[in-house]
Amino acid sequence: MPPASPDSPAHPLPASVAVIATGVIGRSWLRVFSRAGVPVRAWDTDSSRLADAIAWHSRTVTAEHTDADRRAAEHALVTPAPSLEAALEGAEYVQESGPESLEAKRAIFRSLARHAEPEAILASSTSVIDMTDIADGIATAHRCIVAHPVNPPHVVPVVEVLGGRDTSPEVVECTMRWLQGVGQVPVRLNYYVPGFLLNRMQAALVREAVDLVARGVASVDDVDAVIRDGLGLRWAFLGPFGTADTNADAGARDYFARYGPSYESLWRDLRTNVRFDEALLERIEREREPMTRGRTPDERRAWRDRAVTALRTLKLELAKH
Amino acid sequence: MPPASPDSPAHPLPASVAVIATGVIGRSWLRVFSRAGVPVRAWDTDSSRLADAIAWHSRTVTAEHTDADRRAAEHALVTPAPSLEAALEGAEYVQESGPESLEAKRAIFRSLARHAEPEAILASSTSVIDMTDIADGIATAHRCIVAHPVNPPHVVPVVEVLGGRDTSPEVVECTMRWLQGVGQVPVRLNYYVPGFLLNRMQAALVREAVDLVARGVASVDDVDAVIRDGLGLRWAFLGPFGTADTNADAGARDYFARYGPSYESLWRDLRTNVRFDEALLERIEREREPMTRGRTPDERRAWRDRAVTALRTLKLELAKH
Repeated sequence: MPPASPDSPAHPLPASVAVIATGVIGRSWLRVFSRAGVPVRAWDTDSSRLADAIAWHSRTVTAEHTDADRRAAEHALVTPAPSLEAALEGAEYVQESGPESLEAKRAIFRSLARHAEPEAILASSTSVIDMTDIADGIATAHRCIVAHPVNPPHVVPVVEVLGGRDTSPEVVECTMRWLQGVGQVPVRLNYYVPGFLLNRMQAALVREAVDLVARGVASVDDVDAVIRDGLGLRWAFLGPFGTADTNADAGARDYFARYGPSYESLWRDLRTNVRFDEALLERIEREREPMTRGRTPDERRAWRDRAVTALRTLKLELAKH
Repeated sequence: MPPASPDSPAHPLPASVAVIATGVIGRSWLRVFSRAGVPVRAWDTDSSRLADAIAWHSRTVTAEHTDADRRAAEHALVTPAPSLEAALEGAEYVQESGPESLEAKRAIFRSLARHAEPEAILASSTSVIDMTDIADGIATAHRCIVAHPVNPPHVVPVVEVLGGRDTSPEVVECTMRWLQGVGQVPVRLNYYVPGFLLNRMQAALVREAVDLVARGVASVDDVDAVIRDGLGLRWAFLGPFGTADTNADAGARDYFARYGPSYESLWRDLRTNVRFDEALLERIEREREPMTRGRTPDERRAWRDRAVTALRTLKLELAKH
């Protein structure tokens, strides 16, 4: 399993954390913190969802550790709280993963502002909403921040961190350090853009992939193969700039200075008027069959998460050489 | 090391292959074929480049196999030819990796038409030129095809296969089978589009990555981290459709039907007027420094190729479960 503990004393940890709303993202946050040795209190408006999350946490801890003491230690770090107030008591960091609507977020952040510890950082897992809007008019706005993970965060480590208009720079710094401390890879956005970094880049790639299928240039499976047996093999280790940097002797600047005109010419040829119409959706449905290999969605997700976890272990080993 | 031999008798191999032009791509093709047990004759207009390629092949074989017999066997499969005619003698498949200009490609394909075996498949590694243009007016046009690899093909397996106007369907089929036979992952384009599949999808992602840096939303390293510690961890195993398929219970169709409107709205926000101006190139140069970690370009490339090779081995293991 990837980084189970802080990798250096330069990355301190919060003494205690509250995880608010425990759906698929929230329950995964439980593991991020417990794996790093941080005590977590969990709370959800729906008590059966909270119980499910605790049970899920317990199962994944049991599946990961063969050592009974380590199991017990990690189990003991996570406790369900009977109320929001109880969850927030003593928490230096709060991670909220509730419904994705501005109204819902504003309601919960108003509650957090009332009940959280006076110095607590209040982070939202939102993937779309600007913290400026969520925290507008809330007294604790300087301590409110977006910390958007990839699903599920205990498997994929990147977290997009960005403050709103009133978020203090110290809160941004501290969030970055704490997330690094628990083994995530926080990246900083200097200001809000729709989709942040990850969903924008994903959308750019998806648009071209979808267009290639819609135009009948290649099949769904062949377009996917170009990523999983081509570009994705590098992108697992190097981003687009790092890849460019290995593709020219004088580095990324040299690469883009040389190939910039080719990119610009190709960019002009990429279509922007792509739409998900019924014919396209039907085609995707028809052609996706081979990739399921008779597995259920849960089995496919479990395979994906095992694969990513094994890749992260491989990357840790390769980083040593 | 990834697939060294054909994975099933359904994928027969060419009896003998000619590799024409032995730069960085051509020399890597030598390894693709020799690793699969196929005899290769190599030729280049520049005899010192040919000698370098043979020496490089020898070094990589030696580095890979500890077993002396396997080394000797693979060494013995590759021979430099004294002339184009000698290289082509008996070759059922010809892989050409010469300069990327239509004029140069047409000249070499005219020579191939004259000297290759009457039934030989004549494949070009071109990443940009339409085979319709290369083979226009050439008598063997029905046997001419594009087989565009990723650099280097002995590390990254995907190969984009597409015929020109006059290429026969049997030649496309046979090229696909033979490339699968030697352990590559051929994908089929139904017709020519600039950049094929791979460079179009790469360009789409690069445009957004570059724009995010140019607009100051995030640093070069943070944009890269979103790929290498986020999206790229999945894309190493699943393409965009496969990823979508694991993100909704009813699969990719359901995912895109649900999130299509969000994608379309994000697509409208992606900028298309991105340019590599001097300020952007300087910024990339300044911010790329941390990613080099004091390594030379050759060291970084060698690390990248080792990492990709280890990932392919991991994928073979995961595919069993």
